[in-house]
Amino acid sequence: MTASTNQTNVVPERTVLSVDAMGGDHGPAAIVAGISRSVKANPDLYFILHGPQERLSKLVAKRKQLVGRVEIRDAKDVVTMDDKPSHVVRHGKSTSMWSALESVKQGEAQGCVSCGNTGALMALSVMRLRKLPGVNRPAIAILWPSRNPTGFNVMLDVGADIKADEHDLLQYALMGVSYARNGMGLERPRVGLLNVGTEEHKGRAELKLAHELIAAQADNSSFEFVGFVEGGDIPGNACDVIITDGFTGNIALKTGEGTASLIGDLLKEAFKYSPLSRLASLLAVTSLQRLKKRIDPRRVNGGVFLGLNGTVVKSHGSSDATGISAAIGLAVQLAQSQFTQKIAARVASVTPMTQDDSTGVKAD
Amino acid sequence: MTASTNQTNVVPERTVLSVDAMGGDHGPAAIVAGISRSVKANPDLYFILHGPQERLSKLVAKRKQLVGRVEIRDAKDVVTMDDKPSHVVRHGKSTSMWSALESVKQGEAQGCVSCGNTGALMALSVMRLRKLPGVNRPAIAILWPSRNPTGFNVMLDVGADIKADEHDLLQYALMGVSYARNGMGLERPRVGLLNVGTEEHKGRAELKLAHELIAAQADNSSFEFVGFVEGGDIPGNACDVIITDGFTGNIALKTGEGTASLIGDLLKEAFKYSPLSRLASLLAVTSLQRLKKRIDPRRVNGGVFLGLNGTVVKSHGSSDATGISAAIGLAVQLAQSQFTQKIAARVASVTPMTQDDSTGVKAD
Repeated sequence: MTASTNQTNVVPERTVLSVDAMGGDHGPAAIVAGISRSVKANPDLYFILHGPQERLSKLVAKRKQLVGRVEIRDAKDVVTMDDKPSHVVRHGKSTSMWSALESVKQGEAQGCVSCGNTGALMALSVMRLRKLPGVNRPAIAILWPSRNPTGFNVMLDVGADIKADEHDLLQYALMGVSYARNGMGLERPRVGLLNVGTEEHKGRAELKLAHELIAAQADNSSFEFVGFVEGGDIPGNACDVIITDGFTGNIALKTGEGTASLIGDLLKEAFKYSPLSRLASLLAVTSLQRLKKRIDPRRVNGGVFLGLNGTVVKSHGSSDATGISAAIGLAVQLAQSQFTQKIAARVASVTPMTQDDSTGVKAD
Repeated sequence: MTASTNQTNVVPERTVLSVDAMGGDHGPAAIVAGISRSVKANPDLYFILHGPQERLSKLVAKRKQLVGRVEIRDAKDVVTMDDKPSHVVRHGKSTSMWSALESVKQGEAQGCVSCGNTGALMALSVMRLRKLPGVNRPAIAILWPSRNPTGFNVMLDVGADIKADEHDLLQYALMGVSYARNGMGLERPRVGLLNVGTEEHKGRAELKLAHELIAAQADNSSFEFVGFVEGGDIPGNACDVIITDGFTGNIALKTGEGTASLIGDLLKEAFKYSPLSRLASLLAVTSLQRLKKRIDPRRVNGGVFLGLNGTVVKSHGSSDATGISAAIGLAVQLAQSQFTQKIAARVASVTPMTQDDSTGVKAD
């Protein structure tokens, strides 16, 4: 008993993350730079880094603060953005992505971070880590800049699957609430169900059924259900957690990103128009940087895979060191909060199960 | 024959629009101001204005340029934003919205403009004007600020219906092409089908089927099919016409609007932060106005109802005079291009029909 207690105390002090060094647009140099930045901010971090040994060794050797903190696992192949998930599942054993998930599966690391192909990462994660008991469809959750006091909303699913029935949507709500509580510190998150109108008679059949299921769980699971919300509420402050199927969520996410990017470019153009506007842009530079920081996607970089036996954070393919470091920070926070165990307990508490819940972790 | 030719020449010179004066957030004063602005720009315009006679007479009397151009039709009731479409269809005969559509049905006006409840306006339009032969689901098309040379993309459906099968999506493509050609002057519009990825194996079953149907019609109907596009392409320049079901389109539209609005507010905040940034904002005022004008939703105000026997333009509920005037301009352009007849011919050309196509208008 004493040994066991000691072990429980020791583990959280030494957080080990498994990082896929390959598959991002900027190559392994950006990943190593991101790891290095994370270690500066959090000296209790250790890494298992997956990719071509020789190349990674050289990159790691250049960073003094990484000495003794990074173990490299040789993986000669890379999952590309064009690889089909089904192909990777069958033939991807020699890839850095597979190897990175393996470290989580074997319990060597408390979480995995990858910038690679989202579809392949999800397919491999489901195959290697397996879904949590009671979870039908895992989901990808992201943080979205919003008018909320925290500055962000959680939205899921943004693309793990293209469909979701009412039971899936209920599970998304439960998993999203756990995420908002453990990842954003919200005690009693407000949950909204994405629809084309807020009236209860509107929308698809599965949304009306999901409305009932989610409403019925609100008190039990300590969240507030605000009912249907609309697209405009995604960047709004009507709720903290937005529930939708992966098709709609993916389109909404990319539409929002594309709109923000268009406005950013038009803003730059507008400031280049005349000598006076160029002068204005010089004076406005700190204001614009403040705005940019507020909605900088790198600050909230990381789609979290929910519903699996293990924490997996998908960093944006175009992530630089700042983005990678943010994704690592998120993985650390989730790993240290025993997030996976809490989601498992939460899902188990509302899913009729034959076996006993033996996680011993309070649902949260 | 001579008389008929004369008539054809006369009709376009005198364009009559039917305008619902009620149901907008700013009341009939904004509508009358918008009409007045339109007349200044286009002295060949005449209006039938629907709403409470006494109130409208006073508003119209204040504007000299409207003398002899506006006929008022008394309608004592108003469709509110909260009215259920099914209720309006059954009990809405005394409303200004119903009356406004009636003028189009009776052939007194070449198009209808309303700021009212979208669902009710669509339901009433379908009931009173009827769908074009061969059209299963009418659609709402909007213009979206984009990186295209024209500055805008067409997207449909953005909320007429919550579902669409592959045949509906094909019809949306044909109707959207007609709109891009007649409303935006694009000879050979590029059409994209909205999905969660651009690979042909991705997405829902009906999208794969629609991909085949639309591709097969591209040459016949003189458009270019670029295949699947993603949310980021809505404000992009991959295509000119974006095809999707009304559920997804509505969520995307509102997400984009909400994101733009959040960025606008954060931009204002950023410029208020310090004395220096306030000075910068003074210098930048013309640059920012240029940007605002570029993405000002009022400039492209108007969702066009496609697939009906008549032109109906839905102006935004919060439209001011500028917005109303833009919606009227759009209705005029579509009415003068014999848009409805062209869509009817286009749909008929690819829809197996029992009766002969007797519109005599070239598909466009």
